Amino acid sequence: MSNFIHDLDTGVDDAIALALAATDPSVTLLGVTGTYGNVTTDVGVRNTLDVLALVGRTDVPVYAGQGHALEQEAFHRHEVSARIHGENGLAQVNIPPSPRSVEPERAIDFLIRSMHELNDALTIITTGPLTNLATVLIEDPSLRSWKGSIVVMGGALTVRGNINHFSEANISQDPEAAKIVFESGLDVTMVGLDVTMRSRLHLRDAARWRSGSGTVGAFFADMLEYYIAHTLGTDETYVHDPSAVICALHPEYFTIVPLCLTVETEGIDRGRTIVDHRRLTERNPFTKVCVDVNAHLVDSYLGTIAICATV
Amino acid sequence: MSNFIHDLDTGVDDAIALALAATDPSVTLLGVTGTYGNVTTDVGVRNTLDVLALVGRTDVPVYAGQGHALEQEAFHRHEVSARIHGENGLAQVNIPPSPRSVEPERAIDFLIRSMHELNDALTIITTGPLTNLATVLIEDPSLRSWKGSIVVMGGALTVRGNINHFSEANISQDPEAAKIVFESGLDVTMVGLDVTMRSRLHLRDAARWRSGSGTVGAFFADMLEYYIAHTLGTDETYVHDPSAVICALHPEYFTIVPLCLTVETEGIDRGRTIVDHRRLTERNPFTKVCVDVNAHLVDSYLGTIAICATV
Repeated sequence: MSNFIHDLDTGVDDAIALALAATDPSVTLLGVTGTYGNVTTDVGVRNTLDVLALVGRTDVPVYAGQGHALEQEAFHRHEVSARIHGENGLAQVNIPPSPRSVEPERAIDFLIRSMHELNDALTIITTGPLTNLATVLIEDPSLRSWKGSIVVMGGALTVRGNINHFSEANISQDPEAAKIVFESGLDVTMVGLDVTMRSRLHLRDAARWRSGSGTVGAFFADMLEYYIAHTLGTDETYVHDPSAVICALHPEYFTIVPLCLTVETEGIDRGRTIVDHRRLTERNPFTKVCVDVNAHLVDSYLGTIAICATV
Repeated sequence: MSNFIHDLDTGVDDAIALALAATDPSVTLLGVTGTYGNVTTDVGVRNTLDVLALVGRTDVPVYAGQGHALEQEAFHRHEVSARIHGENGLAQVNIPPSPRSVEPERAIDFLIRSMHELNDALTIITTGPLTNLATVLIEDPSLRSWKGSIVVMGGALTVRGNINHFSEANISQDPEAAKIVFESGLDVTMVGLDVTMRSRLHLRDAARWRSGSGTVGAFFADMLEYYIAHTLGTDETYVHDPSAVICALHPEYFTIVPLCLTVETEGIDRGRTIVDHRRLTERNPFTKVCVDVNAHLVDSYLGTIAICATV
């Protein structure tokens, strides 16, 4: 049984990733921490509460995290986020609002507390900017010797970025935070565009979800269809955020190489994830990068999961 | 027994790489083809003849290749090349001039002929720009189905370049040629800065060569000491060109990942080696990338080779 905390900015692919983590029988989902990116932190937290209710996990606490990047005063949502994820972040689909509220405890405090309590028995999955985790390490530097695992959807090492040739969306939101996390010495696995753009979610997955019993699958089908139409515009789309959950559950699907990573924070390639040129001769890198994926195995996995297993 | 052709612009690290290939008892060095880069093609060919004579391989034919990049009219040597490799390309060391001459046959024709004759029994090692190989593929497109192997010193996939953040020196000389070779469908292994900057040649290697019998080792010791002083300036330097020969002989020292590579030819990242975003879902990539190296094994190898084995 794996203990997960999922840190995310709940847009469409975050919602699907969250549904995977929340309904996998091998996972204990201890809590969900919200951040900004696809939507504001406030909207993301509301979306998270609603998605958890939809998949029958009203037992999972939700915490609000930081509202903007470390070195910025505020978060301004990119136009492209509204286009891909819809104005409400969930593809304009109106899933039933959850009566639950966000926890009063800060996401940062929940993370710090959980990391100390569970140590190496905890995996943190991030599918948004890394501001919350960086803030944890700034507020509690003792956690730099934490022995748990972090699986990050973000970055682009061997492929072009999706913001420009160098930078991927999650990392580009807060390169300084990503640099802190990647250079922290913690066990970080990067699940970047290198692999997320090789796998696909299909219209046929949406159709399968819609045909399931109950109404839950139809909401996810509506979301996925919208997301497919507004990303690749064909009958399929990339598997960005769900890939981080899949990698945490099935690392054997991926080609993972240990490399000392950092993030460029200056100049034209600000936000680029790259091997740290100051650490080329270091042994035992603590960061790992997924450089390839067996997309067939991911496809098989996604082709069998029930998006509403617990309902 | 491996059949090698070595294509190079004979500066210091090319000369050391050539000595490795020319003196390894498991290698049949069929010929050497000259290109521009560290020096002009004419100077490089002269240096090649002299280095081969120095290590006792006056039986290996030397052919002159292209003098400049595919889309340029002429080659202008970079100032940094004169600084690192010396004005004469061989660290201002005056090794005895060989009485031999370059072959009358063009390098391009020798390569085309050898590739047809030997097919999969031939490995071509390149430690300069890829103009000669690209010209081969332009002049004889039937060689796009050639079954031999190419091992390229060049490029930077997971690390910054050494010309700028994006581009490595050999690739930057002729990005169009590199793009042709990487996209050709041929079996290409990229040995880039990702691995060449992780290994080291040391002053102690120079001292060992100098202490050997005869005078040959002293010439190489002089060259290596100059190169160390003008690159890292400490007691060691990177193992750029020799890494391609070492990878051809001992691929097991390297972490090699099959990935479909291309080269950016436009914009700020012109000359960047990168996974081809149009081929992310293709199976069975024909290009392979060295993303890591066991530098300890390279070090052990370099610590035992006799630079003048056949003399």
